[in-house]
Amino acid sequence: MSYNTFGRVFRFTTWGESHGPALGVVVDGCPPGLPLDEAAIQPWLDRRRPGTSRFTTQRQEPDAVRILSGVFEGRTTGTPISLLIENVDQRSKDYSEVALAYRPGHADYAYDAKYGFRDYRGGGRSSARETAARVAAGAVARAVIGEVRVRAYLVELGGDAIDRAAFDDAAIDTNPFFCPDPAAAARWERLVDDARKAGSSLGAVVECVATGVPAGWGAPLYAKLDSELAAGLMSINAVKGVEIGDGFQAARLSGETNADPMRPGTDGRPVFEANHAGGIAGGIATGQPVVVRAALKPTSSILTPVPTVDRTGAAAEIRTKGRHDPCVGIRAAPVVEAMVALVLADQKLLHRAQMG
Amino acid sequence: MSYNTFGRVFRFTTWGESHGPALGVVVDGCPPGLPLDEAAIQPWLDRRRPGTSRFTTQRQEPDAVRILSGVFEGRTTGTPISLLIENVDQRSKDYSEVALAYRPGHADYAYDAKYGFRDYRGGGRSSARETAARVAAGAVARAVIGEVRVRAYLVELGGDAIDRAAFDDAAIDTNPFFCPDPAAAARWERLVDDARKAGSSLGAVVECVATGVPAGWGAPLYAKLDSELAAGLMSINAVKGVEIGDGFQAARLSGETNADPMRPGTDGRPVFEANHAGGIAGGIATGQPVVVRAALKPTSSILTPVPTVDRTGAAAEIRTKGRHDPCVGIRAAPVVEAMVALVLADQKLLHRAQMG
Amino acid sequence: MSYNTFGRVFRFTTWGESHGPALGVVVDGCPPGLPLDEAAIQPWLDRRRPGTSRFTTQRQEPDAVRILSGVFEGRTTGTPISLLIENVDQRSKDYSEVALAYRPGHADYAYDAKYGFRDYRGGGRSSARETAARVAAGAVARAVIGEVRVRAYLVELGGDAIDRAAFDDAAIDTNPFFCPDPAAAARWERLVDDARKAGSSLGAVVECVATGVPAGWGAPLYAKLDSELAAGLMSINAVKGVEIGDGFQAARLSGETNADPMRPGTDGRPVFEANHAGGIAGGIATGQPVVVRAALKPTSSILTPVPTVDRTGAAAEIRTKGRHDPCVGIRAAPVVEAMVALVLADQKLLHRAQMG
Amino acid sequence: MSYNTFGRVFRFTTWGESHGPALGVVVDGCPPGLPLDEAAIQPWLDRRRPGTSRFTTQRQEPDAVRILSGVFEGRTTGTPISLLIENVDQRSKDYSEVALAYRPGHADYAYDAKYGFRDYRGGGRSSARETAARVAAGAVARAVIGEVRVRAYLVELGGDAIDRAAFDDAAIDTNPFFCPDPAAAARWERLVDDARKAGSSLGAVVECVATGVPAGWGAPLYAKLDSELAAGLMSINAVKGVEIGDGFQAARLSGETNADPMRPGTDGRPVFEANHAGGIAGGIATGQPVVVRAALKPTSSILTPVPTVDRTGAAAEIRTKGRHDPCVGIRAAPVVEAMVALVLADQKLLHRAQMG
Repeated sequence: MSYNTFGRVFRFTTWGESHGPALGVVVDGCPPGLPLDEAAIQPWLDRRRPGTSRFTTQRQEPDAVRILSGVFEGRTTGTPISLLIENVDQRSKDYSEVALAYRPGHADYAYDAKYGFRDYRGGGRSSARETAARVAAGAVARAVIGEVRVRAYLVELGGDAIDRAAFDDAAIDTNPFFCPDPAAAARWERLVDDARKAGSSLGAVVECVATGVPAGWGAPLYAKLDSELAAGLMSINAVKGVEIGDGFQAARLSGETNADPMRPGTDGRPVFEANHAGGIAGGIATGQPVVVRAALKPTSSILTPVPTVDRTGAAAEIRTKGRHDPCVGIRAAPVVEAMVALVLADQKLLHRAQMG
Repeated sequence: MSYNTFGRVFRFTTWGESHGPALGVVVDGCPPGLPLDEAAIQPWLDRRRPGTSRFTTQRQEPDAVRILSGVFEGRTTGTPISLLIENVDQRSKDYSEVALAYRPGHADYAYDAKYGFRDYRGGGRSSARETAARVAAGAVARAVIGEVRVRAYLVELGGDAIDRAAFDDAAIDTNPFFCPDPAAAARWERLVDDARKAGSSLGAVVECVATGVPAGWGAPLYAKLDSELAAGLMSINAVKGVEIGDGFQAARLSGETNADPMRPGTDGRPVFEANHAGGIAGGIATGQPVVVRAALKPTSSILTPVPTVDRTGAAAEIRTKGRHDPCVGIRAAPVVEAMVALVLADQKLLHRAQMG
Repeated sequence: MSYNTFGRVFRFTTWGESHGPALGVVVDGCPPGLPLDEAAIQPWLDRRRPGTSRFTTQRQEPDAVRILSGVFEGRTTGTPISLLIENVDQRSKDYSEVALAYRPGHADYAYDAKYGFRDYRGGGRSSARETAARVAAGAVARAVIGEVRVRAYLVELGGDAIDRAAFDDAAIDTNPFFCPDPAAAARWERLVDDARKAGSSLGAVVECVATGVPAGWGAPLYAKLDSELAAGLMSINAVKGVEIGDGFQAARLSGETNADPMRPGTDGRPVFEANHAGGIAGGIATGQPVVVRAALKPTSSILTPVPTVDRTGAAAEIRTKGRHDPCVGIRAAPVVEAMVALVLADQKLLHRAQMG
Repeated sequence: MSYNTFGRVFRFTTWGESHGPALGVVVDGCPPGLPLDEAAIQPWLDRRRPGTSRFTTQRQEPDAVRILSGVFEGRTTGTPISLLIENVDQRSKDYSEVALAYRPGHADYAYDAKYGFRDYRGGGRSSARETAARVAAGAVARAVIGEVRVRAYLVELGGDAIDRAAFDDAAIDTNPFFCPDPAAAARWERLVDDARKAGSSLGAVVECVATGVPAGWGAPLYAKLDSELAAGLMSINAVKGVEIGDGFQAARLSGETNADPMRPGTDGRPVFEANHAGGIAGGIATGQPVVVRAALKPTSSILTPVPTVDRTGAAAEIRTKGRHDPCVGIRAAPVVEAMVALVLADQKLLHRAQMG
């Protein structure tokens, strides 16, 4: 089934293919009266935009967003906000081979198995280009959750992790990798260059921290904050793992080590002495920073030939030409940020629906 | 917001607190004509039932399920199936301390922050006892997906992993840990005994494999099979991480290593030469086994005192008495199985809604 | 598809068959801290209860409700509220004939056409007995919308309408017809007696007025207040028509007659000089009384023989024995009230989700 | 709350304001492989298009639809279908008065009460112009339910009803009123002319019949076919009443008169000897024609001055200038058709989800 809507009260619906005329998103349920114009959305799209460094695909897409509805005199009206981004730089001829044979790691075979045929141009609907629409929607979500700061960055690329001791928030925007550790960023240049030259690709781990989330946001049991975040992140192309707080490492701790002790705070609220939980207990925010991580597999589009089959079932070999990110994890950072913002906006509205 | 329904067309709604009179689940959207009676559900509950070995809580709950609706003359009617499990062995007096102070790692503080007060007896709604209802619903889901075998087991306990080379499916049901590696199971006895004696607790990693899932099940983009599985697993108490296929390890592989090459199969369908993807591409099943993992933190209820605050905001220290699992990860295996079955049943019906 | 959940954020899920062991409802999304116990729910069920006068079915059901979850120390906790009503007075043997032949006007044939078989005892899931669960849920909804008074009554029975000039709110609870016009109530006694004696049945029109609904509740476009009310009322057994305000009569008015002129009020809000609109414009409450009407067909279970077919497709004739309401519209009044309360509770929470 | 999505598995989301740059709809969940292009959608829009006769608004909108996604090589792909219609003929200056004072019968006051401000140009989101998007979506729905014929027409205009004995299906498309009775159509010309000249407006009743709906489509209890139809129709601008089959008239019949007797048919399925039920029993289609009616109030935009208040709360009087339909019920016929098709497409997919 095609399900292109995410969220419960703050909802968005994306549409569009990689090589169609345009892609877009309809954001519904947004509170009225929030300042919004294209200039408030565009910078977030620009962060995700391809072609800004040699470490990303060279497809040139301005990704200029247009607001088609839901905003009047510079403010949201409370009615659906339609955002449209035109596709400009398509080279569909690059995909003649893809039309015939299935690229391993891509959705080609799965889409054919499901739908019987597919829009093969650039992956069609399964292209990561769809994430532009989420980033646009995420900009609206940010307007809803003004009390929260959402910040994503890479903590690992090609298996090379940052040094947590060297974490510098300011560094994140000064290198092409959204990397908070300048030394790691320097190493990663070489890693990505080497992978690209070798016709290979690399994976990455993106971490995202949301500070300012009030204790109480969340929704037991099947819209738990962590459950919604997991769903949101796992829906991003190439994500294969999601962690909250210590994640898999928590499974290796003892109960007393994993505990986040509390002591009285000066404002009547408890102070936590640790944050193994990643700011969520029982599916509800504790007031600590919400910490999530997503693991992204290496780009499946590689120049190295891989054995496969074609649509007739015959053996084939495929090299994925075209213009691809050597590491999709890099441009995923703004997408992860957007998804976290979108989940939080929905949870904020859900919380006040029930709590007034 | 309280959201106690999961699923899109095959849906279930759970209710009930740890120390209320009963708990239960309403399963809606089930196809008619499927054989179903209590005897088909009870064995799954028995696998999850507490008090069956010294490695789980000593609370004695028969967890006897009653079917109250939706079944006529031994077959499902297509109308909602109401399942009820009575709570029998409650010792609410164990919780007088919990009523006052917040147990770190538990939802106590978060629930109070959200709702202003809470049913503190045994964790109330946030108790893992709720998972009994999911296991009951999971038994119905299994009837819907007769073509699929869902099997969960522990691959790691307290940081001690199984030897994959020693994997023995038959062993899973012959030890109290759902452990497929007999040697590891033997080691884990000691680990859990030691933790319990020390007033500590342990985490675990549960893996679940679904074989027989037809290529094509799945729902791009925001009901992707992996996204739904992530949401379902992350909604289980104590889960802090979810992986599909190679998960986080995929982020450390090169593109060519991570590829799952295909070659022609004898039945016209491709044969995959690897399964790094865990049976899902683009959110849609590829026909390979679907492989997921969930990381469970150590039980938060420990006898070791932990600093905390009480409801007045004053400093306190808490030791969680009562009867608790030293490792909640153990009994999570049947719960993970149930959630995977529930997601797959929903996706099966969604698939045929769109595809006929 | 079986869809037994209604509502968007304040949601309820009903289950149970006419002749199963019990029926019930799970109410989810209720705000916490509201006073609630069985004594607050039971009176509403008692109003709908069968067997209280000679004008309703003689089936004797105490309809005693039990709260199984979601309430702690007399207040709602914000988690799902499970309500259970046992079926007591079942005479399934009355239904041996129904098992074989289709009762015209009933769902017998439609259920068989859909599901292939059905629980034929008392209509199974399609029985109006399900509405007891709605009434119980409606009592919870009332606790959510303390600012609103919801009041339903019959304005027509068997084609005999009340005299609007004789409308007496106090009379509604003093006759067995929820009739606000004592003279009409007296006439209706005779009408219903005659119908019952003739083995016939009668229809009715129920009107419901909700006062105190604040201007602003409602949800354009596809959860418009009137749209949700129409869905809710049309889902009640035997309802064949729904009107808002002047309803069909509005189609016969000129634009200037149908207009509800406004003039300044003393509290800054406009005063409306008419209420043709029934308190709703553009799907949003205007602050005027919300007025809806539902038309209920005559009870389909009649003693008069009707030609039909049996399950083998052969011609048959059926007289529906058993104990039936000669006019289902009578007991529908409390059900309509409950549905209106349930819709309004949902809309109240939706409104504050978006508006804060 | 803003809820601009309708449907459960076959879903559509509309967006856009009367005087924004464009409006549109995203259709999600459509089966793949269906032939679809702009030429298949445009004729349905043309039927609803304004300015085609002197009996509708003179606003000139080509309502040319563009498909932006979800179709590849002339067939649906199973992914979201984005349809866009540009607004061309806007005269926002007509609305300077509306910005200040509330038009009775319109959503002006209700929107302000809810959102605090509104896009007042042409009614903004509450404009009937939104229904163009539904009609476009309805064209997609028709492709899904090829077995069904959906046909709407006016049975009453300004209180003047058609003669059922003169019903001529072929006449519907030969007059500007979608009127199946040529004599009535002739009378209505005069009625509408007179109303327009008088600065007044008229209401109408639209009937819609869907033939070919298989027995079994439908979804007890809260997605009953009649309940979904009622919700869909009541969400259309100006609709104040909805009936299924005999509707309100059924409340005036005796049980035996209202019964739809069955006799054996030649194909093993029963033949019904009447259709008081309008083709639906227990929320499920019986295989008979599905018959619904919607009552539309007279256009609220009239030249006759009506007392009102302005945004400051002061008394005012308003004449609604601009270009308006003297009877919105006329152009509602294609909209009703579209909504019925959309509901049926959803129910078809829901049915096969559960039944296979």
